[in-house]
Amino acid sequence: MAREFDRGRVFDRIDKDKKKHIARVKRLLKQPSSSQEDLGINDCADLVAKLYAEVGCDNVEIIETKGNPIVYGKCKGTSDRTLLAYFMYDTMPFNEPGWKHAAMGAKMVDMRLPSGKVKAIVNRGADNTKGPLAAFLNAVDSCAKEGGRPPVNLILVAEGEEELGSPNLPSYVRKDKKRLSKADACYFPFFAQDSTGACTHFLGVKGVVYFEMNCSGKRWGRGPQEFAIHSSNKAWVDSPLWRMIDALGTMTDDDGNRILIDGFYDDIAPPSEEDRELIEELAKKLDTEGFKRTMKVKEFILPEDDKEALMNAYTFGTTLNIDGIWGGYMEKGSKTVLPHEVTCKVDIRLVPNQRKDRMIPLVKRHLEKYGYSDISVKEIDTGYDWCRTSVKDPVVQAMLRTFDAHGHDPQVWPTSGGAVPFYVFNRILRIPFTMGGVGHSSLAHSPNEYMVVEGNKKVASLTETEKFMVDFMNEYGLSG
Amino acid sequence: MAREFDRGRVFDRIDKDKKKHIARVKRLLKQPSSSQEDLGINDCADLVAKLYAEVGCDNVEIIETKGNPIVYGKCKGTSDRTLLAYFMYDTMPFNEPGWKHAAMGAKMVDMRLPSGKVKAIVNRGADNTKGPLAAFLNAVDSCAKEGGRPPVNLILVAEGEEELGSPNLPSYVRKDKKRLSKADACYFPFFAQDSTGACTHFLGVKGVVYFEMNCSGKRWGRGPQEFAIHSSNKAWVDSPLWRMIDALGTMTDDDGNRILIDGFYDDIAPPSEEDRELIEELAKKLDTEGFKRTMKVKEFILPEDDKEALMNAYTFGTTLNIDGIWGGYMEKGSKTVLPHEVTCKVDIRLVPNQRKDRMIPLVKRHLEKYGYSDISVKEIDTGYDWCRTSVKDPVVQAMLRTFDAHGHDPQVWPTSGGAVPFYVFNRILRIPFTMGGVGHSSLAHSPNEYMVVEGNKKVASLTETEKFMVDFMNEYGLSG
Repeated sequence: MAREFDRGRVFDRIDKDKKKHIARVKRLLKQPSSSQEDLGINDCADLVAKLYAEVGCDNVEIIETKGNPIVYGKCKGTSDRTLLAYFMYDTMPFNEPGWKHAAMGAKMVDMRLPSGKVKAIVNRGADNTKGPLAAFLNAVDSCAKEGGRPPVNLILVAEGEEELGSPNLPSYVRKDKKRLSKADACYFPFFAQDSTGACTHFLGVKGVVYFEMNCSGKRWGRGPQEFAIHSSNKAWVDSPLWRMIDALGTMTDDDGNRILIDGFYDDIAPPSEEDRELIEELAKKLDTEGFKRTMKVKEFILPEDDKEALMNAYTFGTTLNIDGIWGGYMEKGSKTVLPHEVTCKVDIRLVPNQRKDRMIPLVKRHLEKYGYSDISVKEIDTGYDWCRTSVKDPVVQAMLRTFDAHGHDPQVWPTSGGAVPFYVFNRILRIPFTMGGVGHSSLAHSPNEYMVVEGNKKVASLTETEKFMVDFMNEYGLSG
Repeated sequence: MAREFDRGRVFDRIDKDKKKHIARVKRLLKQPSSSQEDLGINDCADLVAKLYAEVGCDNVEIIETKGNPIVYGKCKGTSDRTLLAYFMYDTMPFNEPGWKHAAMGAKMVDMRLPSGKVKAIVNRGADNTKGPLAAFLNAVDSCAKEGGRPPVNLILVAEGEEELGSPNLPSYVRKDKKRLSKADACYFPFFAQDSTGACTHFLGVKGVVYFEMNCSGKRWGRGPQEFAIHSSNKAWVDSPLWRMIDALGTMTDDDGNRILIDGFYDDIAPPSEEDRELIEELAKKLDTEGFKRTMKVKEFILPEDDKEALMNAYTFGTTLNIDGIWGGYMEKGSKTVLPHEVTCKVDIRLVPNQRKDRMIPLVKRHLEKYGYSDISVKEIDTGYDWCRTSVKDPVVQAMLRTFDAHGHDPQVWPTSGGAVPFYVFNRILRIPFTMGGVGHSSLAHSPNEYMVVEGNKKVASLTETEKFMVDFMNEYGLSG
């Protein structure tokens, strides 16, 4: 029979295996897994399965779906509590300009943060979220090696389509419901410190809907129908590109911030009592300077001194964002054409109680109302609903106790601005979720994405992150 | 001494040399000369110089400028009149999708036009305007071979920067003014028939101004400053892309046709008596169906049955056209980013008495007025002023007599919608200009650009084009 969990031995093991653990992080990061380009996905699934086995999972399965495989694993623990650790092994594409080091080179670099010097690995996925995935597996590995078992039963579910909106995760969870239902809560490993070392704990995630709008002469029945024509014809032929500008112009007010689509805000619930209390606390701690420095942002939409208003906007705000637009002649010089079409990508972020299935119909109705019903609206990937867990839930309380035990007083946010498909576990398995861990990483979806490996007095090193994760599992195990 | 010009012998020579002439056309077309990409320019200048010598020019010079060289040639004729033939040896880029045959393959293909079957060469530049240039050199060659001299003195000026707005043509013309001033008129070879065989004669050209607008967080001082950031931040960070949509939205009314920039229409002169008479005639003959078929256009801006209004719009209308727009994420899938910048290319077409130097200041003033002075406006290439010649001018009358002699009753348009730098010759040398010739070509700036080589009963073959050009030279020579 396996030995009982021994915290001290596990921590020593983490320190001893530091080099091996960094190597495991790099190994996972360097394996491309860009789901949007279908690049390296199956190889990465195989690698994750291998890592599950390496860290002592009882059984490992690569489960095929209609899309990219799910990597399932199980690990018997020393308590009755069962945690479903949700991972994504896919990443964003990494071919944008601006990388100072190879996006797949996992280069260890010296970095100066406001909290002091650190060493960090620069690689796509370091922050979002193969870095935290590898750190968690390192933590499990150390339990297996020294304790024999982690302090909680684990079900590991890694999907390879998060950046596509997790189109096959709901049907997988429904199909595998019997096994997955053993979980008492869902956990998503995540580095929760910012560049100053301040910790953030998110109680929820926003939802997201993503779509492409295309305005073409062909569907409109006006303007060039099949190809761009000489721009002298603008004198008597309409422009689908101007039409798109005008259609988009009806969707927000003059500064692009207030959304003018009927019904867009209708389902939004007012912040709860719990939300309001959290925001009041948060506003006091909000490090606007740190955010601005990391993201290279100069001004917020609202005045920076009203931190409560800022926090409310970020937390409870739904958004309509143009991710990209393209059409006509986009190269060097002065080719004069009247384009026949233009396309843009748009995302909507959802807050309680907006529902993802209602948003695209609202956009379509808006276009109809303004006479633009020929402009197509095509959903890309499947989108997520928002999800929330109360601060009072045992899994959240275990997380907060862990932060406390490690000397951190995290900012508790009602929600993150990002989207993670917790709603799948929450709505289908009816379990709460939590995310987090000490450590710092940043620049998800941007060039030079990084994760700290050697921290400083404020920002945790990888070894501390792993110890935190062990303690969180233990705290949750003890709470059952 | 050279023999006098003998029309019959020259025409026989054109028939005899048909294969050689087609080969010369193909040779010129197949030499890439994309000025916007600086592709093949010097090789093409060398080739044009070689062709000048081949067709009997007395002296040929490749004249360096600050940009691409001018190819100058001179040819003594049998009359006192001197014609300055203006050519452009550069073309648009040819890497856009949609080519059914290699863009540089000069493939001879069977084509069915509304006027019947033809054989045409498909190649970038076939229409705009290396096809007409080669045809004219063939005509001169036939005079040289059979008549010893063309029926008019010729000065040949080929530039390689027309598609860049002819930035160095004005200074060249000023510098070489002494020699060029011998010219009584300027001529631009051009295939003037449409796909039904109807002939068009343009008395003028519009002007053009081309610029790029860029909206960036950096210049704005709001939004992401240096790179695209995660789109969840739209909740509290502004979007330069929405700002560009809104700024562009202020520039035209809801259908993108009426321009709302103060002063944009101010300098426009009302159509002259001659203009109005021409338009009345033109409206009767306007082949809207032919245009729509070739350009794949379904509807005009104005109702198609009011042909006079259509002609007025095309002829006297100034335009503000978006040639292209790009920014943010433009690839596959659903990358969620808040972009830090967006760029668009815009062209303005000018009619009498708008002036190119006044337009960009108006655009800038408009952006300032609406609070968008951070959006940059950068002129691309140098633009052209409009230019006109009266229908009564001897060089136009010679052209119209030639059409008549060849059995054509051309539609006389006060202006083309396109821009050709005739203003340089007109304003500096104070000479009138004309353009034209029978023959049909189309799809300038589009894939599958072509020129007819073997015509039908309505559309001229290359040999007929060349005979027309010989007759035009002769008519103009006799008019002196």
